[in-house]
Amino acid sequence: MPDLEAVVTALQERVQRLDDQAAIYQLIANYGPAADSGWSEMAASLWTEDGIYDAQVGAWQGREAIAGMISGETHRKYILEGCAHILTMPYITIDGDSAVATCYGQLMRNDGDNFRVWRVTATRWELHRDPDGWRIANRVNKLLDGDPSARELLRQGIAEGMPR
Amino acid sequence: MPDLEAVVTALQERVQRLDDQAAIYQLIANYGPAADSGWSEMAASLWTEDGIYDAQVGAWQGREAIAGMISGETHRKYILEGCAHILTMPYITIDGDSAVATCYGQLMRNDGDNFRVWRVTATRWELHRDPDGWRIANRVNKLLDGDPSARELLRQGIAEGMPR
Amino acid sequence: MPDLEAVVTALQERVQRLDDQAAIYQLIANYGPAADSGWSEMAASLWTEDGIYDAQVGAWQGREAIAGMISGETHRKYILEGCAHILTMPYITIDGDSAVATCYGQLMRNDGDNFRVWRVTATRWELHRDPDGWRIANRVNKLLDGDPSARELLRQGIAEGMPR
Repeated sequence: MPDLEAVVTALQERVQRLDDQAAIYQLIANYGPAADSGWSEMAASLWTEDGIYDAQVGAWQGREAIAGMISGETHRKYILEGCAHILTMPYITIDGDSAVATCYGQLMRNDGDNFRVWRVTATRWELHRDPDGWRIANRVNKLLDGDPSARELLRQGIAEGMPR
Repeated sequence: MPDLEAVVTALQERVQRLDDQAAIYQLIANYGPAADSGWSEMAASLWTEDGIYDAQVGAWQGREAIAGMISGETHRKYILEGCAHILTMPYITIDGDSAVATCYGQLMRNDGDNFRVWRVTATRWELHRDPDGWRIANRVNKLLDGDPSARELLRQGIAEGMPR
Repeated sequence: MPDLEAVVTALQERVQRLDDQAAIYQLIANYGPAADSGWSEMAASLWTEDGIYDAQVGAWQGREAIAGMISGETHRKYILEGCAHILTMPYITIDGDSAVATCYGQLMRNDGDNFRVWRVTATRWELHRDPDGWRIANRVNKLLDGDPSARELLRQGIAEGMPR
C-alpha cells in the first residue's frame, strides 16, 4: 500500500458519508414511534430549536409549538382510535452540515375491521448537523392529491443529487 | 496523522456500528419475502433456536413452532389469496451483542380490485448476535387499535437511545 | 496492531460492502419521486442503457422506452389524480459488480377522501455496477394476487444469500 495515511483519510471520508446516511435514517425512523405514542417532547427534539414543521394542514415553528401539535386534540384523537405515521426509506443528499431527505409519509388510521390510508404525502426534510447530531430545520409535507406542489417537492429532492 | 493506529481503531468501531445497522436492516427485509413465499424454514432461521414470536393473535417459541405457523392453515390461506407482510425501516439501538429494532408492520391482503390494509402493528425486535449473525430472540407485535400497549412498545423502542 | 496494512485492507472491503448497500438504497428511493413527479428522464436514468422494466402490466426495454412509459397516458392520469409509487427497504445480495434487491412495491392512488392501495407487488431489481454507479439491468414486478410467480420471485431473492 503506497501511502497508508492517504488510504485511511479516504476511508474516513467514506465512513463519514455512511454515518450521515445511517443517522438520517435513524432520525426519520424515530418520528413515527414518537408521534404515535404521543411522546411530544421526543418528537419535538428531532427538530432544531426553531425548526419548522409545515404539514399543509397546519404549520408549527419551534420545539414547543411542535410538541403542542403532538399533544393537541386532533393528534390525540388519532392516537386513541389507533394510527400509524409511516415514513418510507428516503432519498438523501448531503452537503457538509446540511442535508435533504425526500420520502413518502402515510397516515394509517384504524377503521374497525381494517385500516384506511388516510393521507399519503410527499415529504421533504431539510436537515442540519448540530453538535448533538442531525436535526430537522424544516419539514414540509404535500398531499399527493394531484396538486403540482407535491410533484415539485419530489422533483426538487432528487434534482439536488443525480444518482451516481 | 499523529497516531495512525488509533485512527484505524476508531474507524473499525464506526464500521462495526454501520455493519450492525446494515445487517439488522437485512434481517428485517428478509422476513416478508420468507413469510409471503411460504418458506417456513427460512423465516424460522431468522430467530434464535429458542426465539419467540409474540404476534398477539398467537405466540410461538422455537424455530419449529415458528415454521409451523408459517406453513399453517391461516397463513397459507393469506398467501393463496395474495398478501404482503410489509415492514418499515426500523429505529435501532445497539448495545454490544444485543439490539432492539422498532418499526411498523403492515399486512396487506388482496381484495380483488384493490388491496386492503388488514393489520397495522407496532413491532419490536429484540435481537442477539450469534456466531452466524444477528438473530431474533423475541419479536412482539401490537395492533395499533388504540390500545395503550402499542404506544408503550413504540415509546420503549426509542427511549433506549435518544437520537444524537 | 500487528499488521496495519492488512487491517486497513479489511476495512476497505467492509466499507465497499456498506457503500454498495447504501447506494442501492438510494437508487430504489429515487424511483418513486422520479415516477410520481413525471420526471421521465430521471426515472429512465436509473436503468442501464438497454435495461428492462417488466412490470407485468407491460414491459419496456431501454431508457427511451422506459421514459415513454412514465410520460405516457396511463401514468400521467395516475399522477394528475394523485399517486405514490412506494417501495420498501429491500433485501440485497451483492456479488462483485452485480446485485439483486428484493422488496415490495405499492401503488397508492388518491380516492378523494382516502387513498386506496391499488397494487401491491413483489419486485426484483437485477443491478449492475456501471462506471457512474449502480444501475438497473432488469426490474420485474409480480402482483401479489396469489399467483405462484410472485412467491417464486420472493423466494429467489432471499435464496441467493442466506442471512448471516
